[in-house]
Amino acid sequence: MQDVDRLDLSELFAGRAQQEWGAPLAPPRQGSGPPPIPFTYGLPDPGSFPYQDIIQATATVVNREGPQAFQYGTTRGFDGLLDVIISRLAGHEGIEATRQNLMITNGGLHALDTVCHAFVNPGDTVIVEAPCFHGALDVFLRLEAKPVAVALDDGGMRIEELADKVASLVEEGRKPKFIYTVPNFHNPGGVTMTLDRRLALLGLAAEHKIVIVEDDAYRELCYEDDPPPSLYALDRHGLVIRLGTFSKILAPGMRLAWALGPEKAISKMLLFRFDTGTSQFGSRVAAEYCREHIEDHIVDLVKVYREKRDAMLHGLEEHVGSLARWTRPQGGFYVWVDLSEKIDSDRLLECAREEGVNYLRGTACFPDGRGRNSFRLSFSFPTADEIVEGTRRLGQAMRAAKS
Amino acid sequence: MQDVDRLDLSELFAGRAQQEWGAPLAPPRQGSGPPPIPFTYGLPDPGSFPYQDIIQATATVVNREGPQAFQYGTTRGFDGLLDVIISRLAGHEGIEATRQNLMITNGGLHALDTVCHAFVNPGDTVIVEAPCFHGALDVFLRLEAKPVAVALDDGGMRIEELADKVASLVEEGRKPKFIYTVPNFHNPGGVTMTLDRRLALLGLAAEHKIVIVEDDAYRELCYEDDPPPSLYALDRHGLVIRLGTFSKILAPGMRLAWALGPEKAISKMLLFRFDTGTSQFGSRVAAEYCREHIEDHIVDLVKVYREKRDAMLHGLEEHVGSLARWTRPQGGFYVWVDLSEKIDSDRLLECAREEGVNYLRGTACFPDGRGRNSFRLSFSFPTADEIVEGTRRLGQAMRAAKS
Repeated sequence: MQDVDRLDLSELFAGRAQQEWGAPLAPPRQGSGPPPIPFTYGLPDPGSFPYQDIIQATATVVNREGPQAFQYGTTRGFDGLLDVIISRLAGHEGIEATRQNLMITNGGLHALDTVCHAFVNPGDTVIVEAPCFHGALDVFLRLEAKPVAVALDDGGMRIEELADKVASLVEEGRKPKFIYTVPNFHNPGGVTMTLDRRLALLGLAAEHKIVIVEDDAYRELCYEDDPPPSLYALDRHGLVIRLGTFSKILAPGMRLAWALGPEKAISKMLLFRFDTGTSQFGSRVAAEYCREHIEDHIVDLVKVYREKRDAMLHGLEEHVGSLARWTRPQGGFYVWVDLSEKIDSDRLLECAREEGVNYLRGTACFPDGRGRNSFRLSFSFPTADEIVEGTRRLGQAMRAAKS
Repeated sequence: MQDVDRLDLSELFAGRAQQEWGAPLAPPRQGSGPPPIPFTYGLPDPGSFPYQDIIQATATVVNREGPQAFQYGTTRGFDGLLDVIISRLAGHEGIEATRQNLMITNGGLHALDTVCHAFVNPGDTVIVEAPCFHGALDVFLRLEAKPVAVALDDGGMRIEELADKVASLVEEGRKPKFIYTVPNFHNPGGVTMTLDRRLALLGLAAEHKIVIVEDDAYRELCYEDDPPPSLYALDRHGLVIRLGTFSKILAPGMRLAWALGPEKAISKMLLFRFDTGTSQFGSRVAAEYCREHIEDHIVDLVKVYREKRDAMLHGLEEHVGSLARWTRPQGGFYVWVDLSEKIDSDRLLECAREEGVNYLRGTACFPDGRGRNSFRLSFSFPTADEIVEGTRRLGQAMRAAKS
């Protein structure tokens, strides 16, 4: 590029782009110690991707439906993949959905983007959990929603606190547009919402006519008893938009997720799909794979991740002990850790770098600067041995940060 | 879904979603005549997709880089595909770009979506051509930009009219945020902007500090002499954001396009990627394919589409003659037709349906209700024989609509 007379475009940026956002989550820096054991991100286990089956599915799809796989498709997405989702919802949860209740998206946050475009005016309030999935917080903030946080405990979102906050907001004329929740195996909190709270949440939402956005990315990765029915399944008022994804049960590299909701809401969300629909090529390969293999594959994945979850919980018990408290997830990828008050979190970050272990700082998961004394551990990516070693390093780092 | 007590969510929709948008472009209805010959959409030739090479590229990529192909990647996109773009820009146009000047998007309109998010506040003016690509108009309108249209003629956008409009808008305090143009083989106009006008456009943009969004989706599909250098290549002020795509030279079903621009602008646009990056799987398959085959493939495509273009122009000459005037594109997919004033355009639509031929009505390509007596023909999808037959039916329909 030429570099003479180049103009500074800063003054031309839109209001929403003027803000100096924190640096996007950079790969954690390495200290002078051993290569770090990565607990920061919820990356799926790389050994579990179905490599050869995807090569086979690609050949089948291209040979059988190549002209459609390579052409433009509908904005809602490939019918065959919609039908895979419909059939799984019916078979596993007894949910009757039609194609008109669904759309395929380029990942779960893209689905959330379309929810925000359809529902949120700049400045509108949305309710999030505290802590909240940092990626969702980014979407809300960049699209100029104002998140208000409601605390989690071991039973999920605290509904009494929610009711109080909603009442105050309504009184102030700031009724929330929606309540964003991850009811199962919370990201980042690791907890699951009880059935009673799900019902109370639905009642509150119906009373005030507030949409619920149910992000259920981890439902299938359940290592104990099944979680309670989804908010979508329990809803009698058509207030729930549920998000699901193939990222955790197939591969994030395919960028395939979906939104399920009332036909009218999905129709509005479709207006804000500026990609003219998700890749036909990827969608058809995934649909072909899923028709043949997905149920067996999920059974295998549950074994893989249950072992990793167990390794992390045992490792924390053994190596961290009383230096912190942590959640015990029944599924998903995440453990949330609250530090003992004696540990300085800035110092811990340095010590963890030196020991060779990383994690997601809690501050990324709150809209209001809280979370300094907490962090998220993801057990999905490292091997079970690495996980145990990682918890050992974490314990060392905590002891170093304490002294 | 349960259907008791379902609430109407309409009042909860955001302002931008309240508007009743025209029905999305539905597949043209069929009359009682023969199956229609499809001139409506710019769908690539289905016989030209590289089916077996993509199967091969998929196997190569999955076996060689499977863990990365199936995992999350960076928001900017796969380095290997960025490098394919950089290398083609250097080799064909002498443009020196770096990865920091680029991002991969899910199609060209998705790139335009990020431009709007980074630059356009609700109500901001943007300049478009008249006629304008209907997909781009949809993005502008849904993201609450206010398009102001400047006429095209055989030399592209009319720069004197542009200068007048910009001067008036500046005087009114409504300086446009950007000028959106398709300089080569215009969609839908079929014309190419002259070098003189490109230079004048750049001068005007620099004088007023207005961004130019150059949508160059068809550059490679050139059936005569090369078009003039791109606005991006001619720009000395860092004011041009250029959009390119793999949809026309590889396959729209892959949903792969790109934006090229000043580093700072691309960085801001990246903040409004809510998909966490385009599919690694699709990007890596495309990069592998392109490294081996893309230059030869484009040579083949040019032959395919040149023959179709010629068939359409000959067919129109023979069968439509003096009933209309039309553009003679040097490349791309589109011919723009202005009807003789004696033909009623509503009646023509009926007659064309009966004859079995369809097209895109001109009204879709103007922000202000104009275009009733014009339409766009796409010659990319039907075979050469179908194209000639389609022009014959069009001539018949015109004669029927005239009487």
